Amino acid sequence: MSAKKGLAEFIGTFVLVLFGCGSAATAGGNLGNLGIALAFGLSIVAMAYVIGPISGCHINPAVSLAMLIRRKLSGADFILYAVCQIAGGLAGAAVLYAIIDSTGAAVVSLGANGFGEGYGIGISLAMAIVVEIILTFVFVFTIFGVTSEESNGRVAGLVIGLTLAFVHILGIALTGTSVNPARSLAPALLLGGTALEQVWVFLVAPLAGGALAAIVHKSLSRK
Amino acid sequence: MSAKKGLAEFIGTFVLVLFGCGSAATAGGNLGNLGIALAFGLSIVAMAYVIGPISGCHINPAVSLAMLIRRKLSGADFILYAVCQIAGGLAGAAVLYAIIDSTGAAVVSLGANGFGEGYGIGISLAMAIVVEIILTFVFVFTIFGVTSEESNGRVAGLVIGLTLAFVHILGIALTGTSVNPARSLAPALLLGGTALEQVWVFLVAPLAGGALAAIVHKSLSRK
Amino acid sequence: MSAKKGLAEFIGTFVLVLFGCGSAATAGGNLGNLGIALAFGLSIVAMAYVIGPISGCHINPAVSLAMLIRRKLSGADFILYAVCQIAGGLAGAAVLYAIIDSTGAAVVSLGANGFGEGYGIGISLAMAIVVEIILTFVFVFTIFGVTSEESNGRVAGLVIGLTLAFVHILGIALTGTSVNPARSLAPALLLGGTALEQVWVFLVAPLAGGALAAIVHKSLSRK
Amino acid sequence: MSAKKGLAEFIGTFVLVLFGCGSAATAGGNLGNLGIALAFGLSIVAMAYVIGPISGCHINPAVSLAMLIRRKLSGADFILYAVCQIAGGLAGAAVLYAIIDSTGAAVVSLGANGFGEGYGIGISLAMAIVVEIILTFVFVFTIFGVTSEESNGRVAGLVIGLTLAFVHILGIALTGTSVNPARSLAPALLLGGTALEQVWVFLVAPLAGGALAAIVHKSLSRK
Repeated sequence: MSAKKGLAEFIGTFVLVLFGCGSAATAGGNLGNLGIALAFGLSIVAMAYVIGPISGCHINPAVSLAMLIRRKLSGADFILYAVCQIAGGLAGAAVLYAIIDSTGAAVVSLGANGFGEGYGIGISLAMAIVVEIILTFVFVFTIFGVTSEESNGRVAGLVIGLTLAFVHILGIALTGTSVNPARSLAPALLLGGTALEQVWVFLVAPLAGGALAAIVHKSLSRK
Repeated sequence: MSAKKGLAEFIGTFVLVLFGCGSAATAGGNLGNLGIALAFGLSIVAMAYVIGPISGCHINPAVSLAMLIRRKLSGADFILYAVCQIAGGLAGAAVLYAIIDSTGAAVVSLGANGFGEGYGIGISLAMAIVVEIILTFVFVFTIFGVTSEESNGRVAGLVIGLTLAFVHILGIALTGTSVNPARSLAPALLLGGTALEQVWVFLVAPLAGGALAAIVHKSLSRK
Repeated sequence: MSAKKGLAEFIGTFVLVLFGCGSAATAGGNLGNLGIALAFGLSIVAMAYVIGPISGCHINPAVSLAMLIRRKLSGADFILYAVCQIAGGLAGAAVLYAIIDSTGAAVVSLGANGFGEGYGIGISLAMAIVVEIILTFVFVFTIFGVTSEESNGRVAGLVIGLTLAFVHILGIALTGTSVNPARSLAPALLLGGTALEQVWVFLVAPLAGGALAAIVHKSLSRK
Repeated sequence: MSAKKGLAEFIGTFVLVLFGCGSAATAGGNLGNLGIALAFGLSIVAMAYVIGPISGCHINPAVSLAMLIRRKLSGADFILYAVCQIAGGLAGAAVLYAIIDSTGAAVVSLGANGFGEGYGIGISLAMAIVVEIILTFVFVFTIFGVTSEESNGRVAGLVIGLTLAFVHILGIALTGTSVNPARSLAPALLLGGTALEQVWVFLVAPLAGGALAAIVHKSLSRK
């Protein structure tokens, strides 16, 4: 059963990174931030309905951490999930690298996150941390909300995906929108340079935002 | 219980203003009016499923007034809701201010509403009032319609959010689309100038449109 | 009861024309064909959930004709519906006219349909007729399909609206997409000129396409 | 019964090709890749709710092959489906040809797929094959996932359509996105030239990707 869960998380994160980061890197100018946002958001919609019944479709260590805090995931499964998510993200970014490389052009973008001069509108380090905490808080807070009522049933996957989409609509111009350490680590490792130097922000802040969402939602939903 | 309702309305309005106005102010040119419209609309979708079960997710004094008229909200709760909505909107606009300020650029836009020469296509004051009444009427009328049948259940949040989106698709070029006094007050207070001079339109007209929707829907649904 | 049905069809068609044609006329360049398509499509989504329970939310004489053919609407109601739809469309176009007029600019577009040199990609009269028959066939065929199974229940409004959206995604560049005589008549009457000379196509072809859909769907669903 | 199934698959593929390829060929620049992606995706949404109850709405030989592998379609029906899908695609492309031809301009695009220099970002043959296998895998894998749980019921059509949309958001810049031999064959036959020379990739790779999805989903869902 663990093997299936791990494989499901691997496939899901592979799809998220390949389609989301891939859309940004290969056709970002044509798609605009809205198109990129929908690539990320609709990837989650699809995966929610396929691998959701197997692993819960976290495909994001910040979501898995929040589930661990709320005791909906064991410590051992958290490690399994995180490892498979990171591996899936790396595989997705590697395929994306090979696609772009086959055009003969230099691979200068894999949809990496960033901040400061030369990235998006150029927000500061401090605000990048604040932004990622808020973006992840909103995303994970919504996941808890929509999945905590049985009656939402099969609409949940749509709502979660559309939430990831609007989080990107705002966030792309600011930090590129991580909200997911596995999504950020892969392009940073393959690209190196500034992306790699800044990647710690996109590992730490999403985890903090996810944890915050777990705590706030718990206190709000206590009867 | 009141504290939770108030906090829920605060968070919801914070999210609506930060993501909606923030998308317009930081990436409006890239997103186009469609992208901005979806930022507002999908913010409501997400919040509907998280804070809906707690406070009903009005996050808009015009909606709360309509609910008061239909006796679905007490007078005391109306005041609580309105205060928390205004506070949440201010907090969202303040975070947005800090984000843009951290880039070193002057903060010239926070997604404020407006009319007349130099704003959108430049409609007149009289038509701005008419437009906001109609936009808010359509939005609140749809809220009553979709929530008045139990069977719509969990689709309601999606429908309400998509309605806010198309209301923005038309309205952004005209008034920037308020339909919500709390969404309009915050950027106007922080920016001052023309936005602040014109903001009374975006306080009064949405309240009038919401009240009209409450009355028309009641008469249409009377058996 | 008839008065309520008529009022519901009036309001619904008013909203469709004001928001759909209005988006095209006031911000078409910014929105692109996709944004305009979603303005039309999401207008129908909203109205389906508000006035659907009252009148069925046809807001389109081609839909009402198809329902008449399938004996889901009486002859008397067909006339009532068509009159109220045409009146609602005229009211929507008149408000749109007043909005644009208040900017001081000449009113040169109200989102009228057309064909031939100077409109869209410039298709011929014959192909405009073919296109409108096909577009309306697909739209009305989908309405029959999605509403004929009880189990689709509350998803039906979403599906119908998204169908109108993609019918516009293709059709805007060809004929502007009528599929609805009430939507086409109003701007043509207010603008005159070429729009009025060509409007017969957008009265006749959508009615033919709707009738065809009624017949084909009946034969396919016969057990 | 077979005749109805065949007619349903013919109509569905006709709609997919006319609206999807047609949007790309007549208004691709205005719509951008996002608009084209939604034309394809929402076509499937509509058809799922109309012809789904009749034939299952495959409208794609790669989907039919996957269903054959999973023994949800007989060999005889597979042949019937594939023939009607190819015929429907040809009819859709022929109508599109006539529409463009009626403008007096040369018909240079029918939304054909491709790769290499001069097509999209210019990926290699090998990567085009990899891309199409992955795109089709994700699409068909999601179809199996969302339809394998009864409880998803009426959301399934929406999820499948939105999945086809994001598969196009990434794929248009790479190969134009086939994932469907019937969608690719029709424009290639009518255009000839490079499109026809390269079309084998878009016949073989989608079938391989669909088969792979059938196998992987089966192994993951085995209890």
